[in-house]
Parts: sequence; C-alpha cells; structure tokens
Amino acid sequence: MKQVTKHVIRNDLKRLFTYRLCLIGFKRKGFDRIYSYNLGEEAGVTAEQVRKDFSVFKIKGNKKSGYKINDLLHAINEIFKYQHNQHVIVVGMGNIGKALVQYKRFILRKMVIVASFDIDPSKQSKRFGIPVMPMEMMGEIIKKFHVKVAILAVPDISAQDTANILVDQGITGILNFAPVILKVPDDIIVSNINLCDELESVIYYTQKVM
Amino acid sequence: MKQVTKHVIRNDLKRLFTYRLCLIGFKRKGFDRIYSYNLGEEAGVTAEQVRKDFSVFKIKGNKKSGYKINDLLHAINEIFKYQHNQHVIVVGMGNIGKALVQYKRFILRKMVIVASFDIDPSKQSKRFGIPVMPMEMMGEIIKKFHVKVAILAVPDISAQDTANILVDQGITGILNFAPVILKVPDDIIVSNINLCDELESVIYYTQKVM
Repeated sequence: MKQVTKHVIRNDLKRLFTYRLCLIGFKRKGFDRIYSYNLGEEAGVTAEQVRKDFSVFKIKGNKKSGYKINDLLHAINEIFKYQHNQHVIVVGMGNIGKALVQYKRFILRKMVIVASFDIDPSKQSKRFGIPVMPMEMMGEIIKKFHVKVAILAVPDISAQDTANILVDQGITGILNFAPVILKVPDDIIVSNINLCDELESVIYYTQKVM
Repeated sequence: MKQVTKHVIRNDLKRLFTYRLCLIGFKRKGFDRIYSYNLGEEAGVTAEQVRKDFSVFKIKGNKKSGYKINDLLHAINEIFKYQHNQHVIVVGMGNIGKALVQYKRFILRKMVIVASFDIDPSKQSKRFGIPVMPMEMMGEIIKKFHVKVAILAVPDISAQDTANILVDQGITGILNFAPVILKVPDDIIVSNINLCDELESVIYYTQKVM
C-alpha cells in the first residue's frame, strides 16, 4: 500500500461553493435571474469558467436568457444532497475541536457531529452538547453511526498516528487542522486547514504587496 | 471606488507553506539535504513546479547537488520575516473567535492577537487572555497597535458591515470566517475560510468519488 495523499479537493468543487454563496447574495438583493458573466464577475472568474464548471457538474442553463437563480441553487444543492444526514466525528478536543463541535452551521447543512474523542480524560467529563469519549471507543462509534469523515484537531505530534487509527477504523475522509502533511492510502481524501498559514498569507500581502 | 475583491492568496504562496511543512518533516526524519523531486513528491507537485516556485521567491539552490534543508527553511522563513511582531485583531467572539484568540500557534509565528471585539457586552466581561472590547474601541486599538490584519468571525448577516468598518479604520487584510463574499476595495486582501464548505467537500468525495 503506497502511502501518498492523492485525493485533493478539486478547484471546480471549491468554485461551486463560491457560486452558491454568490447566488444567495444575488437572491437577497432581489435578483431572480442572472447570466454567467454576472456570476463570474461576482465570483472572480470568467463567464467561460462558470459555464465550464456548470458543464462538469451537469448544471444546465440557457446561455441567451440566463439562469434562474433558484434553479441554480437547487442544482448545486442536489450535488451535495445525500439520502441521510452525514455523520462526522471530531478527534482532539482542544480549542479548535471545542469550537467545531459547537459550530451550529454544520447541522444546517445536515452534517452532524455524533461524537468527539480525546486522550485527556478530564475533557471527557465536560460536555459540549455532544459526548467527549475516550479514543478506545472510536471504532465502536464509527461502526454504529456509519461515520466516514473525521475532523482531526489533535496536536501535530500525534496527528499521523491518529490519522492511521482513523483509516484503520474505516474513515475515508479527513478534515485536518494539524500542521502536518498526513500520509494516507490512495483512496483516502485529506483536506487541510492550516490556520497559521492562512493568517500568515494575509499578513504577507499586507506587508509586501501593497 | 470599485468594490471588488482583487487580491487573492496566490497558489505559489500556498505551496511555499506546504514545502515548509514537508521540509520540517524531512528534517525530523534525519535528512539534511534533498532534491527538488523529493520535495515535489512529498508536496504532491512536480520537481519543475518546486524549482519554478523557488525561482519566483528567489530561493536559490543547486540542481545537481540538491538543497540543504536548513538553507531552504531559512530562505522560506526570511520571506515571512518582518521587523516587528504582527498585530492582529479578532472581531466576533463566538465559538470560532474564542478558539482563535486561544490558538497558541499564532504567537510561535510572531502573529499576536492584541485585542478582540464583540457587540455583545456579556462577552466583554469574560477574558481569554486578551481583552474583549466593545466595537467602538476598534479604531483606537488599530491605531495604537498599528494593526493591519483582522480575523472576521462575526455572523454572516453582519459580516459585510463589519468589513466596511474594518477597512474604514485602516485594516488592509481580512481573514474571513463568515460564509459571505465580502466586497472590499481593490487594495484590500481577503482570504476566506468556510468551515462548512471544507467539511462538505470532504464528505462529497467520500460519498461520490470512491
């Protein structure tokens, strides 16, 4: 089994999320129909890019008369619609983990954090709406709730070991907050959010570019 | 003043952060010298891409004998080295805001959160190591600490208004956690972290691709 991260979040998928945000914005402003160049301008891409992305995701429209915003929103939502709520676990109940289990927007999108895990027994006594469990119970919970996705918010030093356990237990997607390049099998998707890098990028531009 | 977000975090900058993580990983494993193809393989890009990125950021090396890892790390760190600590404010002290002001890694990279702000007076009495202040004091703090960068963690409904205030007060870089496409002047950099989109992307792959 070769240990490389092959699956990365594609840019067209990321743009789809941007389009959705833009469409919600247009709708709020009272629009009910738009052209691809309106959406492109708002999203910071060309009209061609918008149409290309729509074509990839099989979103149909009429080039001449534009798109109905509600139709587009419906089409995009269909792409992310699953038969059941999506169960997620959080591993590592530091500040980030705690914030995520309390983050109310996930549930609005039918993403349900069913349990969280931490090696520190003192955290397990506290409650954040969802139970904090010892690591040993992970396998049982993953099985019981058919969990495929884990949010990894452990310290960097234990991130790889924890990722190995997650994969062994049947997790196939990891949203990783640890500043570590995880090694996982080919068929596992890892998406990284590195808060320091994100903040440092913004600082870089304010200091060097302007 | 045209209201578009023009400055986006460039991909080469993002890759530079990835290279740094990989280099730290190599170093931990005991390597002290690597070739661009080693780094490329680890970072998931081609060796040519690595050399191209290094060239953009004026990082020098010897194609034949490889790079000394310490030299590379030093060169990358120099790019993000500033004369002073970088002062940052957090606006919105919900779960995410609270987690960020307590996030210890920022300070290791000399990014210092000097104050946080919230419209809810009840949050202002609580303390998270740094003061939580009323919004009215923002201008004073930004001036006093020469703050250029703000982390925006307010609810989506107030994100644009808050961004307008930030820009008026002299902020030139925003790390935005609100699920909103912010309209800012051309010379302002906005970087978005949309936690729902990130999680939903991972779910998408575990459900549809595999």
